Amino acid sequence: MNTPAGYIAGRQQLFGRGELRCLIDPSSVAVIGASETPGSFGLRTLDNIRIGFAGKIFPINPKYGTLAQMTCYASLEDLPEVPDCVVVIVPSKQVVALAERAAAMGVGGMIIYSAGFAEVGDPELVRAQHRLAAIAQSSGMRILGPNCIGIANLRSMIGLNFMPKFHEMPMVRGNIGLISQSGALGYCVLQGMERGIGFSHFLAPGNSCDVDVCDMINYLVEDDATRVIACMFEGVRDGARLLQAARGALEVNKPLLIYKMANSEISQRTALSHTGTMAGSGAAYAAAFERTGVVVIDSWEEMLETAVLFSKSGRPGTDGVGVMASSGGAAVMAADKAEECGLKLPAPTPATSARLARVVPDFGSTANPCDLTAESLKSVAMYGDCIRAFAEDPGFAAVVVPMMSAQKPATVERAEFLSHLADELDKPVCVVWINEWLNGPGSEVYDASPRISMFRSMTRCIKALKLWLDYYPRRDRLLRPAVERLAALDAAAARESLRQAGAARTLSESQSKRILAAYGVSVTREILAGDPAAAVRAAREIGFPVVLKIDSPDIPHKTEAGVVRLNLGDESSVEQAAADLLRIVSALPGQPVINGISVQQMPSRGVEMMIGARRDAQFGALVLCGFGGIDVELTRDVAVALAPVSREQARDMILSLRKAPLLTGFRNMPALDLDALADAVCRVSQAAADLQDAVAEIDVNPYILGVDGGVAVDALVVHGSQEAQ
Amino acid sequence: MNTPAGYIAGRQQLFGRGELRCLIDPSSVAVIGASETPGSFGLRTLDNIRIGFAGKIFPINPKYGTLAQMTCYASLEDLPEVPDCVVVIVPSKQVVALAERAAAMGVGGMIIYSAGFAEVGDPELVRAQHRLAAIAQSSGMRILGPNCIGIANLRSMIGLNFMPKFHEMPMVRGNIGLISQSGALGYCVLQGMERGIGFSHFLAPGNSCDVDVCDMINYLVEDDATRVIACMFEGVRDGARLLQAARGALEVNKPLLIYKMANSEISQRTALSHTGTMAGSGAAYAAAFERTGVVVIDSWEEMLETAVLFSKSGRPGTDGVGVMASSGGAAVMAADKAEECGLKLPAPTPATSARLARVVPDFGSTANPCDLTAESLKSVAMYGDCIRAFAEDPGFAAVVVPMMSAQKPATVERAEFLSHLADELDKPVCVVWINEWLNGPGSEVYDASPRISMFRSMTRCIKALKLWLDYYPRRDRLLRPAVERLAALDAAAARESLRQAGAARTLSESQSKRILAAYGVSVTREILAGDPAAAVRAAREIGFPVVLKIDSPDIPHKTEAGVVRLNLGDESSVEQAAADLLRIVSALPGQPVINGISVQQMPSRGVEMMIGARRDAQFGALVLCGFGGIDVELTRDVAVALAPVSREQARDMILSLRKAPLLTGFRNMPALDLDALADAVCRVSQAAADLQDAVAEIDVNPYILGVDGGVAVDALVVHGSQEAQ
Repeated sequence: MNTPAGYIAGRQQLFGRGELRCLIDPSSVAVIGASETPGSFGLRTLDNIRIGFAGKIFPINPKYGTLAQMTCYASLEDLPEVPDCVVVIVPSKQVVALAERAAAMGVGGMIIYSAGFAEVGDPELVRAQHRLAAIAQSSGMRILGPNCIGIANLRSMIGLNFMPKFHEMPMVRGNIGLISQSGALGYCVLQGMERGIGFSHFLAPGNSCDVDVCDMINYLVEDDATRVIACMFEGVRDGARLLQAARGALEVNKPLLIYKMANSEISQRTALSHTGTMAGSGAAYAAAFERTGVVVIDSWEEMLETAVLFSKSGRPGTDGVGVMASSGGAAVMAADKAEECGLKLPAPTPATSARLARVVPDFGSTANPCDLTAESLKSVAMYGDCIRAFAEDPGFAAVVVPMMSAQKPATVERAEFLSHLADELDKPVCVVWINEWLNGPGSEVYDASPRISMFRSMTRCIKALKLWLDYYPRRDRLLRPAVERLAALDAAAARESLRQAGAARTLSESQSKRILAAYGVSVTREILAGDPAAAVRAAREIGFPVVLKIDSPDIPHKTEAGVVRLNLGDESSVEQAAADLLRIVSALPGQPVINGISVQQMPSRGVEMMIGARRDAQFGALVLCGFGGIDVELTRDVAVALAPVSREQARDMILSLRKAPLLTGFRNMPALDLDALADAVCRVSQAAADLQDAVAEIDVNPYILGVDGGVAVDALVVHGSQEAQ
Repeated sequence: MNTPAGYIAGRQQLFGRGELRCLIDPSSVAVIGASETPGSFGLRTLDNIRIGFAGKIFPINPKYGTLAQMTCYASLEDLPEVPDCVVVIVPSKQVVALAERAAAMGVGGMIIYSAGFAEVGDPELVRAQHRLAAIAQSSGMRILGPNCIGIANLRSMIGLNFMPKFHEMPMVRGNIGLISQSGALGYCVLQGMERGIGFSHFLAPGNSCDVDVCDMINYLVEDDATRVIACMFEGVRDGARLLQAARGALEVNKPLLIYKMANSEISQRTALSHTGTMAGSGAAYAAAFERTGVVVIDSWEEMLETAVLFSKSGRPGTDGVGVMASSGGAAVMAADKAEECGLKLPAPTPATSARLARVVPDFGSTANPCDLTAESLKSVAMYGDCIRAFAEDPGFAAVVVPMMSAQKPATVERAEFLSHLADELDKPVCVVWINEWLNGPGSEVYDASPRISMFRSMTRCIKALKLWLDYYPRRDRLLRPAVERLAALDAAAARESLRQAGAARTLSESQSKRILAAYGVSVTREILAGDPAAAVRAAREIGFPVVLKIDSPDIPHKTEAGVVRLNLGDESSVEQAAADLLRIVSALPGQPVINGISVQQMPSRGVEMMIGARRDAQFGALVLCGFGGIDVELTRDVAVALAPVSREQARDMILSLRKAPLLTGFRNMPALDLDALADAVCRVSQAAADLQDAVAEIDVNPYILGVDGGVAVDALVVHGSQEAQ
């Protein structure tokens, strides 16, 4: 696997609370480069540490005897004790030497703000970062950074960071653990505290020479104060570690929300120069997130509101929600977005509608969405009755309440009433602030309410609810132990075929099919013939009609090269076609290696599918499934998953295709043998996973699926060792 | 065309300033039901009128002699003069009688708040609304409502509405004209004034028995103070009027932004009960918006920010934008969203990069997106230099500046600096407030800045810029006069074929093809034969191989009925097949009418396309184009436009298909005859438009497209008069 510059490869073990305590929850901290210059990182750090920290603080700066009413020391070595954590505020050139000294003293963790390491790309600076990584690895002193903004621990009330005016913010303790590769973006989310939104931690790993996003996830998985993990990053170095951390979160039932950036070509270029990590393939990340139950966030502005919903809501009791609007327009908007996102809005029970009818005038609606009309707002008690009626309806997992125009004191009183009411209800209440007066009266109450989830966009609210409703069933499915075992796998035979193929990058069709066959994938019957006469004998044995193809590792695209003949119905046409093919290949440039003429059974009719696999640099083997031919390139109608997949997962992949109805009996069409296709996908995925050290790609196209079974008609395996990638 | 209950059908003429002045810009206003009861609509209206109104106000209420320091009158008839406008605040049962009296007096306009008319669905209430419409139509007194929140005219500073605390809001005059079918939603946008965003008008038509959204658009088209029209509705009654109003906006270069709600099945149901209008087909609205250059807004929360961008920006000079971030994370986010939305981020010129390099440290980036890094923020002058450099780069039509964390006083000072700088630049500056402290320090400056467009979501900013960049080229294209004339159209022949087909709902294939042929669409050559012998003679004349189909208006789905035989190569197989087909149809239930056996030329190979047309209740004839077969039903890869289309528009439709590359030479495939397909689409669209009084649907499937021409191989025309719809 490719390791970006400035990191130590091969570390699989995630750090947890034990390893990271000195860094994230220290009892004593030294600040090298402490200062009292206004605006300096040194002063900011001292201010931010002291938001409520009960431990010891050691400012270090040879220029001062005391600093901010504390004894100031000339150097690390002058301290009365070895601190848990050292924050380093010095020019980047001095950092490595300092890290060596601190490690030698037995310091537990070091936070390095300084930029100017691997992210610049200069070989000397890359080497310096690599040296830091090596120090961390050999000494056990955990390093955060370089090029990081630091951390904030709202639990022990310590800010080891240089965020400007951080210490002046209201420190709101909550159960959302925030991780952001970009410190600046993370601070922007953290400023949600100004609105009353609480956090347990804010952790920003920067260049991640030692501790990275995956370790931080793992730390928060082990942290009691954190209930939801909100994580933003551009890429990780090692997919296996991300999978492990995410799986850990899933197991302890802490929803892990990830906003993955750097998905476009240009943004990947930007990201590379920004943090020096590999952004990697979007499809591979998506597959990894799917496999580990990660809640995928599409846009920065969706992260906090979604995290708040997860942090305030437990497992939903059902799969639909109720919308209680006081404006018909808001009701319509909610219904539009629910349909767009696939969120169910079931009808209320007759009993609920009857309760509402006592309050709602005849120009309103007691359905779902319900339109109370502005009339119903005249009495908060009546309003409360309606919300209670929806909250008690067994068909709704949550209640959505759009809030319209805002006026003092009415909307503040209503907000306070609703906030109290929400405390009594056992279902999440989502308020949607439909108002361009973003902080209009009452909004501050909803923002800070302990039970209400506040959204400033209907779209975001509906999307977040859908993510929340989907999370738990998906978690159940992912945690269910796999029971099935694949029979008829012969990995040794597959390896032997690979060995026989030698050093060629692409294998011939028959070599490729031998590997598939070793994994139990059904392939067309074929006989290799050396000349036209042998081809005729082979055709006789197989039975007419037959297909003839030149078998060569050097001709991966046979149709384009003109070395395929289909549907040959008798001996003379086979003989003629075989002679033609031999003549064509003898004229091809570059003298391709020819294994012979492959005489194959003509496949019966069916739908052309494609099954593929490829190796991703971060996440290893991926399996793909879609419709065959060139359709997939244009429509992107393809399912991708981490390999291997179970038959059940393969089936889900197939059914997720937009054109899946073509396989299941759409419009008088026959229902095809999905089990056979799922089995084949599952077997290809197993081959890709088992052989990923030596196989870079598998392409089965077409795999012809009929009503009773299916068969791989063409196949291509691409050699390639992992190291060479 | 179907007219919903409570309206007068057939009025095509849009009202403009002349007709609506008394309603929207009156010199004198009477308020029937004026009151001084706190919270009453009567008091609210009096308060809201007097935000700066210079005209006469006549409170009417028999209970008072004076009201709010004004003389109060007992009835309309007691007023010293006939007022321009009357606002009616009385129970719904009294409204009709009042409207009759006011109309008889010569009142110019009436605003009716009262709900309880057509939206309830009760026949008596529908009749009452219909009576109001009739009064308006016969008297010329324009009626707004019923069931409406009223209007606000920020130009003449009058609020004829019952919006609570409206008069306490800061009245910010601007050039955005706001129209909202839902008054409550509109007020929520208008509350953007609290953030310093200005409006020219807010108009809410409610049930629209007389004046509707289309009239309001037309009013704002004629209003000098309005530069951008922001419009939100669920549906209009008459598509032609919407097209006319939108075309008017396009011609005078006032971007018309529409957020169309009620697109889902459930929301259409909700909308019906809410305002009593027909929501109509989403595809038809989309086609209408495309044809008239409407800027389509997907979500409520995107409306105001997008309107602000349009209101502050003229025609862009080029088609890309520059992103100037001070955080790598924000730069990456911008690049991701730009790729998602198809917004170009061209590289800066070398001169621009050189200017930036003087300021940006080596761990930043001088590309686009540019990463100034937080270092560059230390000096606002340096920061200003960078923004000026981007603004002066000829490759950028606008500059996007993401703003990160906020602190007093630094970010306020920066905002003030940037706001002044933006005044000097000749390009739009878009600030993206990447901060969950939504109203953090500095945000208030950007919100109220006259030149800066402020966004609180990167996604929204990038989407809005894309809409802005696309608007002008599309406008040019739409305003370009069409030059082409279709030759070989014979509408009379087509009508004659329709007449001959009689009363049957579906026409037979040969009848349908005759209509297409009359419009110059190339159809397969065919001869109708009465018996097997005649079929053989016909085949001989056409030339082998041929296709045989039973021609019957009663068998629209021939393949499913088993009455098609393909690829018949000789006389005996034609004779046999003809006999088979006759036997099959004789056994079909219901005794279908049989015109004969259609003997057709076997089409040459090509790609199967589909061309269709259907009549929409609101917008008349629509034309569709996509790939043939059943693919389109699953993939929704279909282009829809208002009929007729020009060849150029037809070509754009074809090229907008996701799978269009299959037609243009993808992967060694031959480039097909797009001109022929475009011509056919154009001709079908003309037929659908010309014959829309009698033809409900046309379906040409497949139309086989080759490298040299194409041909309609099967066709189905569905009869149906417009009234019956």
